[in-house]
Parts: sequence; C-alpha cells; structure tokens
Amino acid sequence: MTQPPQPTPTNTPRQDISELVRNQLQRLLEIQNFQGAKALLAPVQPVDIADAIAGLPDPLQAIAFRLLSKDESIEVYEYLDSDIQQSLLAEFRQQDFLDIVNQMSPDDRVQLFEELPAKVVRRLLQQLSPEEREATAMLLGYRPGTAGRRMTPEYVGLREDMTVAEALDRIRSNAQDVETIYTLYVTNRDRRLQGILSLRELVVAQPEERIGDLMTRDVVFVQTDTDQEEVAQLLQRYDFLAIPVVDSEQRLVGIVTVDDVLDILEQETTEDIYKLGGLEASEDSYFRSSLFKIARQRVTWLLVLLLTNTGTTAVIRSQEEVLEKVVALAAFIPLLIDTGGNVGAQSSTVVIRGLSTEASQMQRISRIVGREGVTGTLLGTMLGVIVTLWAYVMQRDWGVAFSVGVSLFMISILASVAGASLPLLFRSLKLDPALMSAPFITTAVDVLGVLIYLLTARWILGI
Amino acid sequence: MTQPPQPTPTNTPRQDISELVRNQLQRLLEIQNFQGAKALLAPVQPVDIADAIAGLPDPLQAIAFRLLSKDESIEVYEYLDSDIQQSLLAEFRQQDFLDIVNQMSPDDRVQLFEELPAKVVRRLLQQLSPEEREATAMLLGYRPGTAGRRMTPEYVGLREDMTVAEALDRIRSNAQDVETIYTLYVTNRDRRLQGILSLRELVVAQPEERIGDLMTRDVVFVQTDTDQEEVAQLLQRYDFLAIPVVDSEQRLVGIVTVDDVLDILEQETTEDIYKLGGLEASEDSYFRSSLFKIARQRVTWLLVLLLTNTGTTAVIRSQEEVLEKVVALAAFIPLLIDTGGNVGAQSSTVVIRGLSTEASQMQRISRIVGREGVTGTLLGTMLGVIVTLWAYVMQRDWGVAFSVGVSLFMISILASVAGASLPLLFRSLKLDPALMSAPFITTAVDVLGVLIYLLTARWILGI
Repeated sequence: MTQPPQPTPTNTPRQDISELVRNQLQRLLEIQNFQGAKALLAPVQPVDIADAIAGLPDPLQAIAFRLLSKDESIEVYEYLDSDIQQSLLAEFRQQDFLDIVNQMSPDDRVQLFEELPAKVVRRLLQQLSPEEREATAMLLGYRPGTAGRRMTPEYVGLREDMTVAEALDRIRSNAQDVETIYTLYVTNRDRRLQGILSLRELVVAQPEERIGDLMTRDVVFVQTDTDQEEVAQLLQRYDFLAIPVVDSEQRLVGIVTVDDVLDILEQETTEDIYKLGGLEASEDSYFRSSLFKIARQRVTWLLVLLLTNTGTTAVIRSQEEVLEKVVALAAFIPLLIDTGGNVGAQSSTVVIRGLSTEASQMQRISRIVGREGVTGTLLGTMLGVIVTLWAYVMQRDWGVAFSVGVSLFMISILASVAGASLPLLFRSLKLDPALMSAPFITTAVDVLGVLIYLLTARWILGI
Repeated sequence: MTQPPQPTPTNTPRQDISELVRNQLQRLLEIQNFQGAKALLAPVQPVDIADAIAGLPDPLQAIAFRLLSKDESIEVYEYLDSDIQQSLLAEFRQQDFLDIVNQMSPDDRVQLFEELPAKVVRRLLQQLSPEEREATAMLLGYRPGTAGRRMTPEYVGLREDMTVAEALDRIRSNAQDVETIYTLYVTNRDRRLQGILSLRELVVAQPEERIGDLMTRDVVFVQTDTDQEEVAQLLQRYDFLAIPVVDSEQRLVGIVTVDDVLDILEQETTEDIYKLGGLEASEDSYFRSSLFKIARQRVTWLLVLLLTNTGTTAVIRSQEEVLEKVVALAAFIPLLIDTGGNVGAQSSTVVIRGLSTEASQMQRISRIVGREGVTGTLLGTMLGVIVTLWAYVMQRDWGVAFSVGVSLFMISILASVAGASLPLLFRSLKLDPALMSAPFITTAVDVLGVLIYLLTARWILGI
C-alpha cells in the first residue's frame, strides 16, 4: 500500500533542493539508469528541472531533456536560458524540436527568437503552423521592451450578448490554449475592447445572465508601444492578473500577464541598480560576454567620471601654494571628499528611488530638495564637530582642525542639495534621473569640495 | 439613447489622470455638488480614488470618503496610506468605521493595525466579529516580515473525496469571502495540506471526477516564519498566483497572493537600493519622519565610513615627506581614489545584484572574482595609459605621470577584486552582502589606494 505523499517538513532552501536533484540526476544518467532518472524528475517542478539540466555537463543535457514527456519538455524548455535552448536546438532532430517550438507560448517563443541568428529564425518561422507563425511574426514586429513585444495573443475573448453558460463553455474549450482564463475580454465585431470580466464574477453569476450586464466597462489598458516598465507599474498599482494591450485602432491584440510582469520588474530593478553603481545593464548575460566587451562597456562611464575628476586636479594645482605651506592639509583631502560623496549618495539614492516608485506624487518631490538641504545641514554640523576634534587630536593644530571641520560642514550641505536636485533636474529635462547617481554626484561634489576646503584653509590659516 | 462607453484612446499617463480626478473632485466638493462628485468617481478604479482622496485638503478627505458605497469604501480604504487611514478613523462615528474594519481583508487589516497605537488596536480587536478577531489575532502573532504576517487565512479549502461539481458549489458560495478562487487547497481532517488544484484544471474537468484524482500532490509551500523576501522569490520562480503557508505542524494556515508579492518586492527593492546608497531603509515614510530622525539614521553609516577613512589620513601623514618633496603629487589623490572607488562600485554592484537574483547558482558566483580581477586589469591598463599621458600634459614630469598611471593600474585591480570578493565574503559569513556596497568599498579601497600611490611615487621618484 502506498502512503499518500505528505508535504515534508523541510528546512532545506529551495536552491539546495535543485542542487540535490542535479547531483542525483547526473549520477543516474552516468550509470545510464534512465528509469531512475525519470522517477526522480516526476515530482519536480518544471523550473527546477530546467535548473538541474542547466547545471549538467553539456553532453548530458540533451539526454536528460529527452527523458521528459512532451508537455513537460515544452514547459521546461521555456524556463531554460537561451544559450542552453540554442544548444539543445542544435542537438535535436529538426522535427522533434519544431514540435516543441510550435507549442511554446508565443511570448516565450519571441524571447527565444530574439537570441537566435536571423537566418535560424526565418527558417523556424516558415516551419511553424500558420497560426503560430502569424502570432509570432506579429509580436516580432513590435520594438523590444514594449507591451507589444511582451504580450501574448492567447486570451479568452467573449461577446456582450453571450450568456454566462455560453461563456463558460467557451472557456472550457479554450482553456488549454490560452495564457490565462482568469481575466476575460469582451470585444465587438471589430475586435474593439468593450469590457472585462473576471472568472470569479462569472462563476458566481447565474447561467442565464448576459455578459454585457456583468462586465466592467471602464478598462485599464495599454498600447502596443507602451514601455514594459509602465505596463508593470500599472498592473502592480491595480492588482490585476493581466492587462489588455490594444493597437492604434483600439483593437485588442493581446494581454500581458502577472508572471511576465514579475520578470519585467526583476529586469528593470537590475537596470536601476546597475545605473546606481555606474554601470550600463547589458542585454547579454554576464557569463556569456567576453571580458573585453565587459571592460569596454564599463570604461565609458569611468572615462566620463575621470574627465569630471580632472577638475579636482586643476583646482588643487591652482591652490598648490596652500598645500606647499601646510602639507598636513593634504592628509584630510580623501576624508573630506569621501564623506561628501557619501552624504551626496544618500540624498541622490532617496530621490532617485522616490522618482521611480512615487511618480504620481510630484508635488511632494519638490519638497525633497528643501528637506535634504536641512538634513545636510544637520549632518554637516554633527560630522563637522566630530572631525574638528579628531583632526585636532591628530594634528595638534586648531587652524588645520577648523579648516577641516568648517569645510566638511559646507561640503555636506552642498552634497545633499546637489544629490537631491541633480536627479530632479535631469528628470525635468526628460533625461534619466538615475544617471545622476552616487558615482556622478561624488565626482561632481569633489571638484567643488576641494575648492571649498583649500579656500577655507587659506582664509582660516591666513595664507 | 446612451452610447456604450468605449475605452478612449488616450496618451495621458495614469498619474496625470488621477491628478485630473483630484482637481475636479476638489472643485465639486467645494461647491457642495455631491451628486456630481459621485458621478465623477463612479468609473474610477479604487486605487485612483484613494490617490485622489490622499491629495485633497484634510477637511475634504472625510467628506469625499463618505460619498463612496459600502463595498467601494472598503476597497478604497485598503489602498490609503496608514496616516490617512488613521485620520479617517478619528473622523468617523465608531460604528461606521467598525463595519469597514470588520470587512477588510485580514492581511490588509493587520497592515493597518501595525501602524495604530496598541490601545486602539486592542479596542478595535474586541469590537470585531469573533471570526475576524480570531483571524487578525493569529496574523498579529507572527513576526513582521514573515509569511505568517503577510498571509491571509481566507482561501478555498477542498477535500480529496469531493467531486468537481461539489467543489464548484463550494467555490461559488465562498467566492465573496476569499482572497483568490484561482488556486484551491486540498486538506485532510487535521487541516494538513494534501495537494493543490487550479480553478483552470477544475473548469475543464468532468463534474463527477474526484478532487483527489485531479490535484497535484507535490506542493511548494512555505512556513509561517519564512522571510517575506523568500516567499516573493519562490512565487516569482514558480509563476504561481498564490503560495500556501503551513504552521510548524504542517497545517495549512493561510496563503500569500501575487498582489502582496508585488508589494513585498517593491519594499525589498527599496531596501536593497538604500543599502547600496549607504542608507538604512526606514519603516516610516520619508515625509512623516522628522528631519532629526532622518539625520540620526544616516549619521551612523557616515560615522562608520568616516572612521574607516581615518586610515587614509594616517597613511598620508606617515608618508608626508613624499608630498613635502613633490607637492604636485597631492593634486592627483582625488582622481585616483575616486576612480578606484568607481571601479570597485561597478564590481560590487554586479556581485551584490547577482547574489540577490541568482542565489541558486553559487557555483557560478565563485567564478566572478576571477572575472572581475581580469576586468579590473583591463580597465586599469586602459585608464592607466590615459591618465599617464594626461598627467604628463598637466605636469610635464614623467616621474609624477608614471607614478599616477602605475598606481591607477594597481588600484583598479585592487578595487575590482575587493568589490567582487568582499560581498561574497560577507555572504559566506552569513552577513548581508549589500553592506559591502559602493560607499564601503570606496572607502576601504581608498586607504590602500593612497598607500599604493605614495609608495609607488617614492619608488619611481627615488625619494
């Protein structure tokens, strides 16, 4: 008698589970125990199977993939990274593979096609079934990063004059082919969107009620050229499971579902975080890019910053006689510019993050510069006092100590105001506020910071 | 004859729409045209109504809120910020308000209660209906930031021996009270989780089929004490609409739905980005915190960095005679340490982001340090050559120019290796890798960077 499997109380994190699966799978494949491998994978989620296959040595990947049932292999294939998708494509006999590609969701298929050479895409397109070919060609016609490119045309469409019972019948017969049956779209004869309805509303309604009486007519929708980040923000704001996409003539052409939005958000977060670190987000995976390419991408930003930094060198050279007279002043330059940079980084981080999450509240954002200025004054006072005392302990010279402390006070105010206002300025110039991130603020503040320091020292020490 | 409303082709961004609604609403309320205001709000989404109300002057907020129907007011109330929720609570007659609180989702109610004074929470709890009180008290018993605190106990529970028709009946009668009907949970008499089933699978099944034969027995679930970030990552990984939460005895106690996960991800992203900017994410809203509190929160990190930076001052002081002999060297200190900091920031950003998104691929991550070291060497070569030439142009002294260039080459390698390896080291010590973010890497690299520079100059210039 078999015991019904219970959810096992486990404290093993999921990533370790997929590591365990991978190790066992590799052992079973190496001793050619294919039945054992099949049994091992049976209860495993498709995304975990994809991870396990990705971790296998190359020659075993295709063998493991062949063990999967048809339905499973399509799901697993959709989760694989595009480099492994491509190498499996090369391993498989044409026909096996075509069946898989033909049955992928159109949106996942488009993501694969984006990575393949144009020649391969053209050949594959010709061999798809006519309707899949049409759907794929349509999506490929939209710009990457737009709603049109991320959507799937596979939704449930209803008509206003249907009854609830008729709608449920249509859902039943379409359920296998569509991305979601939980949000239903009502269109007219011209495919124009008339309203939406959730399966929840349908399930609780009486069988004879008319769809037109149940549906919501005020629909939040996006255009095919809407940026994917805006699509994600709308879906998040309204707690939708999917959002409809219409073309320039207001015809419903597809939907973007919440699972795609989660992927979009991860991608956009990486882009934002990279910009804050002075990096461009790359289309390519980190490990597949050559190091020369990575270095070339990074060096652009570094050179821009280096150029800005030449201002600092010029300022110091112009005030060189101050340092010649009191060389002890040089010892505090790194401390001052680093602290200024850190204060500026804090302010710009708050503003940049605020701009990307609370876009609807611009009236509040103008108050931020004032608040950051006051915060910078408070921070400058605290840090200035501490640094003055500490510099005196090190140097035993009140002149130098006050020069350092007073400069740090002024630099903190400058840094927090610049950190808060430069991203806002960029935003109002329709540029990306994230370009005014920590590395740039730091470098920009340094030029003025060094000038403030040396002029203050000149004044206090009477040079 | 009324024209059926069509989705209007609009290019107005949604945030401007809610701004328009707010302005019109305020005008209508000021002339006391309440019918007009109701008509204005009728087609507006609850979250947009909440935004419009939040933007009204205080005395009008309660008036606008009273215009809403009962059902609508509950939904709108759930979307309001907790400070406005609290001020409405004060304005309302006790009973009106209790009805709303009693009908909120337990998870949203707990989020409100977290912000209210303990005394008010105790009074409100006593006045809730017994079952809502029990649900709320249970959720409040879990630590903030865990699955237990974010879940809702309102799900559809089925039994293995039910037929599909019986299950659909149960769903119909529960649909109004539960958070989602799209994922269904099968439990036994002890409330232990036996399997899950989607409404999609149910809808396409035959009415007489047994639930036990249809359900999936391999369930991905979390414990009540699982961190909310892990909950979000699991739901995202498996493309679920909800994830079940079990207690220490494996009994199903609630579910976390995808709309909550979107909120969790936004909150966690803000935390990550703040750490990268040398900030602690605050529980309180930026605008409701006093500036003294904000300054106090920020100054801690700044002082830690300042303390690290005293190392730079000590290094320069110990090598002061080098600067005394060739004061021109001082002019390049900011450029060297800023560029080093920028190179280090790029590496640490890549590694920290990698650790938070690709946790399952630790085997790859160990390769990163090597790759970053090579990238740093390439960047150091490019930047070193450029800076040497540029320093010669400025200073007309090959000795100084080579000192700057050779130091920048070494500092770039040091910065990229430190930027990549310190977050990994922190991770392996079970500390948060994001603490080793740009501000800290910059400061740490500066101490060694200045030492490298002055020793290199001493050697090249023969001081």
